[in-house]
Amino acid sequence: VRTASDDERVARAVLARAAEPGDVRMTMLVHDVGARDVLAILTEQRDPQGLLTDLAGRIGSIDGAQELERAAKVGLRFVVPGDPEWPPRLDDLVTAPPLHERGGPPLGLWVKGPRRLDELAGSVAVVGARASTTYGESAAGEIAAVVSRRGVPVVSGGAFGIDVAAHRGALAADGPTAAVVACGADRVYPQAHAALLAHLGSEHAVVSEAAPGCAPQRVRFLARNRLIAAFSDVTVVVEAAVRSGALNTANWAHRLNRSVVGVPGPVTSASSAGVHQEIRAGAMGLVRGGADVLELLGAAGEHLVEHERAPERVRDRLTTRQQQVLDALPIGRGAPPDSVARVAGMGLLEVTGALLRLHEAGLVDHGDDGWRLSAVGAA
Amino acid sequence: VRTASDDERVARAVLARAAEPGDVRMTMLVHDVGARDVLAILTEQRDPQGLLTDLAGRIGSIDGAQELERAAKVGLRFVVPGDPEWPPRLDDLVTAPPLHERGGPPLGLWVKGPRRLDELAGSVAVVGARASTTYGESAAGEIAAVVSRRGVPVVSGGAFGIDVAAHRGALAADGPTAAVVACGADRVYPQAHAALLAHLGSEHAVVSEAAPGCAPQRVRFLARNRLIAAFSDVTVVVEAAVRSGALNTANWAHRLNRSVVGVPGPVTSASSAGVHQEIRAGAMGLVRGGADVLELLGAAGEHLVEHERAPERVRDRLTTRQQQVLDALPIGRGAPPDSVARVAGMGLLEVTGALLRLHEAGLVDHGDDGWRLSAVGAA
Repeated sequence: VRTASDDERVARAVLARAAEPGDVRMTMLVHDVGARDVLAILTEQRDPQGLLTDLAGRIGSIDGAQELERAAKVGLRFVVPGDPEWPPRLDDLVTAPPLHERGGPPLGLWVKGPRRLDELAGSVAVVGARASTTYGESAAGEIAAVVSRRGVPVVSGGAFGIDVAAHRGALAADGPTAAVVACGADRVYPQAHAALLAHLGSEHAVVSEAAPGCAPQRVRFLARNRLIAAFSDVTVVVEAAVRSGALNTANWAHRLNRSVVGVPGPVTSASSAGVHQEIRAGAMGLVRGGADVLELLGAAGEHLVEHERAPERVRDRLTTRQQQVLDALPIGRGAPPDSVARVAGMGLLEVTGALLRLHEAGLVDHGDDGWRLSAVGAA
Repeated sequence: VRTASDDERVARAVLARAAEPGDVRMTMLVHDVGARDVLAILTEQRDPQGLLTDLAGRIGSIDGAQELERAAKVGLRFVVPGDPEWPPRLDDLVTAPPLHERGGPPLGLWVKGPRRLDELAGSVAVVGARASTTYGESAAGEIAAVVSRRGVPVVSGGAFGIDVAAHRGALAADGPTAAVVACGADRVYPQAHAALLAHLGSEHAVVSEAAPGCAPQRVRFLARNRLIAAFSDVTVVVEAAVRSGALNTANWAHRLNRSVVGVPGPVTSASSAGVHQEIRAGAMGLVRGGADVLELLGAAGEHLVEHERAPERVRDRLTTRQQQVLDALPIGRGAPPDSVARVAGMGLLEVTGALLRLHEAGLVDHGDDGWRLSAVGAA
């Protein structure tokens, strides 16, 4: 069944037009028996009660070849399983449990733009609140810039808020990015992102499971979210309210055994409440920015990460006994060596030796009131 | 050995003056054989090299009874194991692994103030950066107010920043609070907190393992931190740089099998970096405020917590099938019932019925272009 024969492609185009994106009954049936057989079965059957679905009734009026032609005219290609650019990781959706009756691998994906779908696999999904804050947008932009600069594509949904901040972060870093949208890949939604979507469609990719022309219904966002998670190695949630589509994407990433992480924010910010809730519940790791996300990717052995370390202090180069003497000095005043020795729990000779060494290192000074911490030693 | 006989108390006062607070060799030896025997052994022994310690040499010059008398004159009592107010949970320090050569149960605690030590057990420790931000101080104050209002004592260290915000939060809520300090309980450090420490010492408690008059050395903060953790059920770190005394307290709480949690903040804030590091490493849970801390205490069955829940929305009262119809409506425009049925993947009759129900509930409206989401339904 996993061939991209013309018949199969046309049958998938028909079913993709007739069925709702991500309807798990349809996607799994097509996965199991192939689109041509499903189409044949549906063409035979009817539902005379009209109670269940009018899908079978609609199929007769859809011309698959025409669907593909019309799509090509607006610059869309229809990528199906078996095509060279089909990303094998989307097949992980076969075994992931459905959510809201959505699930299974897409029948096909409508793509606008030069980027191959398999290049988008192993990407980082950066998703989050539409009602984002400047803080969240800046965090999303930083993460997108850092990972895409390393060549890791940034996948998001093209929406207001965190989504657009992520796309822009990647574009600013000259990195790869793609929007997986809930409406037809030829549609512009939201209207305010017309220029962004046009740019992605001409230089990167706009991807949709929904047939061309389809409107953005809420149920389609739920189906779309599973694709964002499926494309990516890591899903990063940068701000999400307690009920939020971004948490639906995170849920999908879990079902697909992908890494799920979130960026914390002020506990006073409602925009971060969903992220805090999930980190608290152990459903999400915590990342502080792009470097942490790269480290997660690096765990898969593909990327080199320079660990950010706290700067070494002079005291780190001391022996434990010398540190003990340093720590035994009073704060803000001086002390004679025997007092230091007592506090340190060490003998006077050893303490005197250590104090001289610390003096050489610039960590202690000697004054009228004995030994005291220098500005460096007190730091 | 666990009696509070006068001899034992006096011997402990001598050793507490002679040894460094929390010196694990001393605390464990006293725990194992009792203070009177340790004192007898040390009085016999000398260290003629003077290389190891001059402890034995000092002991002869300390008058234990006088120590207790002088302390009483400045309002301090010396509480030792076996005393009615000794909190049994401090004995958890016997089995906790030492850190920086500090460890073991204190020889005794010098206490100023009317609050009994055993009343402070099971408290919440609120600790954090001296160099705190307004955000962190406000979070610390909120947590302290919420838990102390329920009668749970708030323990902190009396220092600048998060410590003082925690004490003040508890005082503002008329709740119990205590400072466990690194210098003698009779000393004022930092000087700026003279009024606060005086108030705690007259209405609540100022507690120290260090003998009266002792100065606040760095090594004493390390010993003190283990006591803050030992008193508490939960240690909350509100802001901490990557290297921070608060993380030392958190480490002690771990060693004592106490809950350790942190309040996240902006990833751009250096004051939150230590907290984020620990949450990320899985060494610390995440709390969003006082309610979350109460919930942790509630897990021990002692406190009743009202769970904060997201407000129920009208859609939560719908059946799954009704929600499916609602979700199938387009965003920002209307649709005829057959289009809604197609998107919902349901039959026309059922959809029409559901739409009428949704209309009754105020979630959808009917206009010239068919059914559309109402303002409530779109929320």
